[in-house]
Amino acid sequence: MNLVDDRGRLMEWLRRQLTPDRLAHSLAVSDTAVELARRFGLDVERARLAGLVHDAARCFDAGQLLKMAADFGIVVTSLEAAAPVALLHGPVAAAWLPGETGLTDAAVLHAVAVHTTGCPAMSALDCAIYLADYIEPGRPYPGSARARRAATYSLCEALRIAFDESLSYLLSTGAPIHHLTVEARNDLLLGRLDLGSAPVNNAGGCQQ
Amino acid sequence: MNLVDDRGRLMEWLRRQLTPDRLAHSLAVSDTAVELARRFGLDVERARLAGLVHDAARCFDAGQLLKMAADFGIVVTSLEAAAPVALLHGPVAAAWLPGETGLTDAAVLHAVAVHTTGCPAMSALDCAIYLADYIEPGRPYPGSARARRAATYSLCEALRIAFDESLSYLLSTGAPIHHLTVEARNDLLLGRLDLGSAPVNNAGGCQQ
Repeated sequence: MNLVDDRGRLMEWLRRQLTPDRLAHSLAVSDTAVELARRFGLDVERARLAGLVHDAARCFDAGQLLKMAADFGIVVTSLEAAAPVALLHGPVAAAWLPGETGLTDAAVLHAVAVHTTGCPAMSALDCAIYLADYIEPGRPYPGSARARRAATYSLCEALRIAFDESLSYLLSTGAPIHHLTVEARNDLLLGRLDLGSAPVNNAGGCQQ
Repeated sequence: MNLVDDRGRLMEWLRRQLTPDRLAHSLAVSDTAVELARRFGLDVERARLAGLVHDAARCFDAGQLLKMAADFGIVVTSLEAAAPVALLHGPVAAAWLPGETGLTDAAVLHAVAVHTTGCPAMSALDCAIYLADYIEPGRPYPGSARARRAATYSLCEALRIAFDESLSYLLSTGAPIHHLTVEARNDLLLGRLDLGSAPVNNAGGCQQ
């Protein structure tokens, strides 16, 4: 089944996977990712698609996600096993989407896989989806408004705010922190991400 | 050369490695570690020794630490290579101390190795040295006073404060964060550390 080239059928499939709220969020992430892609010279169609399906597995429960992870041969850390809904819906969606929808674009699937945690050596598309998920207009996070403003001129600076605010929130609530998120942030701080396009580099937000 | 059983010669050796300030800090960490060990039922002599030598390699410069790490076959991550003085003096000291001082107690050497970053599955001694380094009376960190108070009744709660405050500081200053530190904190939050002795468990600070 290939739904990727038929937006109507893909939406119909997605509507069956998600609650109305989660579907609205997915559309908002898709729209925000498209804006970021246009602003920072990324592939607009990949951004649109990744935003749309990033939460495709978000409405499965913990047991379903753990079973799907096992079926797909995904290595599950003890932290992920303790919080599968939060930490596994991205990796599971990336493994599940090809068979369900015919989506096989590796760049899109990778962005879906890492949209919650980030990872080392993130691509610009990975960064755009992570950020869009944090700043779409419905997000009420304390740092969202600040990251939204930064995203008007620097993908890098906006991403730094998103990482810092997400980590601060996890710290302040006594929640565990995935090691991939600090590794992603380290890459950003140490200038190891290639976020392309002039507006990002000119902003200087990555040079520390 | 075995200096471990001759406190005078060990102190003389340590005085040659460290600045006076760093030596005073080492003595304070040793005293604090002994207090913690007595309070929480740990091996007092190991705590004293680990505290004393934990910073033995702290006065080497970046180039020396990188060369010693290479000579000892220590795997150096790119983050550690970017900040060797902060991140490598513990692991290098643990590899260097046996030949220099005859110190071969694996539990003590492990506590020395991980005293800056923490690590998954920390022993109670590892935790006591990490904490003593954070709360010894000369430490002016914002969270030190709070952690010091908590350390009067719970190793676990004091360690949680030390991790959270250290990570908050790194976040607020835009500094990279070692993945081992968030993994250590995750173990603590998820109740995976065996910190022994009744006072710790009764405080309930680890149950989240």
